[in-house]
Amino acid sequence: MAQLVRVQNFMVSADGYGTGEGQSLDRPFGHADPGALFAWAGATAHWPNRTEPGGTYGLDDYITRDYANNIGAEIMGRNKFGPQRGPWENYDWQGWWGDEPPFHTPVFVLTHHARPSFTLGETTFHFLDASPKDALAQALEAADGKDVRIGGGVATVRQFLDADLIDQLHFAVSPTELGRGERLWNSPDDLLDRFHLEKVPSPGGSVVHHFFWRK
Amino acid sequence: MAQLVRVQNFMVSADGYGTGEGQSLDRPFGHADPGALFAWAGATAHWPNRTEPGGTYGLDDYITRDYANNIGAEIMGRNKFGPQRGPWENYDWQGWWGDEPPFHTPVFVLTHHARPSFTLGETTFHFLDASPKDALAQALEAADGKDVRIGGGVATVRQFLDADLIDQLHFAVSPTELGRGERLWNSPDDLLDRFHLEKVPSPGGSVVHHFFWRK
Repeated sequence: MAQLVRVQNFMVSADGYGTGEGQSLDRPFGHADPGALFAWAGATAHWPNRTEPGGTYGLDDYITRDYANNIGAEIMGRNKFGPQRGPWENYDWQGWWGDEPPFHTPVFVLTHHARPSFTLGETTFHFLDASPKDALAQALEAADGKDVRIGGGVATVRQFLDADLIDQLHFAVSPTELGRGERLWNSPDDLLDRFHLEKVPSPGGSVVHHFFWRK
Repeated sequence: MAQLVRVQNFMVSADGYGTGEGQSLDRPFGHADPGALFAWAGATAHWPNRTEPGGTYGLDDYITRDYANNIGAEIMGRNKFGPQRGPWENYDWQGWWGDEPPFHTPVFVLTHHARPSFTLGETTFHFLDASPKDALAQALEAADGKDVRIGGGVATVRQFLDADLIDQLHFAVSPTELGRGERLWNSPDDLLDRFHLEKVPSPGGSVVHHFFWRK
């Protein structure tokens, strides 16, 4: 099967925001409450940050479990990697995720301010000043036949959508309104010219899963 | 995460039958029409028997794609392996699945009539005259930390349920009534004493997915 370029498990507010306003070290999602956005996934057995046994094994767990399934590389924007902007003052920052980031693949961070690659656990971070198309070519090669995840944030997903490089997208649309922040869309219908859309209410949580795939 | 014992993508008729009456070489599902039972899965992009590009990438595809995800071994009954009954006349029969069976793991076939193991493609079939508990111990070891699928048929799923050895089950319940054949349950509610149940209608097909997991 051909390699796919995928967006997975991306949280969107009812009014179309993927993250709130005012990202900082203490508030990776700005004024948005990540606990509320991620509650549907946090309840599942396969949630990567789960520290205790238990959790559900229904539909939401299939989606959580699929996060790593056949993914060989991720591309993310610098705003997902960290709260810094502009040139690096030093290389102390190694992402939000501690010693064992949840990616377990090469990760390509798009930035105008390159820095040396480094490895944490099973994840190697590379820094690229490249167009979406060129970055994707490198990620597809690194993925060695597996799929490539476009990991976000919002601006990165938008860039890859604008360049028409994405095959399949999953968003968990929450009933919460954020009012301001990084906006993904005015409405999910914005994508219907190029994508099929299937909406499935989560039986366990309050989100509605939106599955898009290329027409 | 602990190894799970799972039933996946098991088709059930509206009146509780997993297969029809009169299994034979020409009719692996007896009088039931496998095309109708499997239509929801056959429409998806990741359906293993798909010969042409295309297919859906919505909810049903997550479930189809999950079939091989973290599965390290399968246990099946002899009636799933083939239509023969009683002692083997010879060892010519190697299953229904051609040169590349869709399992890609060790498969343990429960039978009172043992025969030598053999390998087809990435799948090795072993034949065991053993209790569900003892067969499961072998399969868990062969799975090397991954999950074990209880692959059916109906009698095998029932045996493992009766022995309380299953952690998680997914059934695609179709609106079709079969009237006779191998019966899985009177009603899905039969399992509610021991399992949670989440029902999700397939948006793409006519089945209702039933997800069970241990209380």
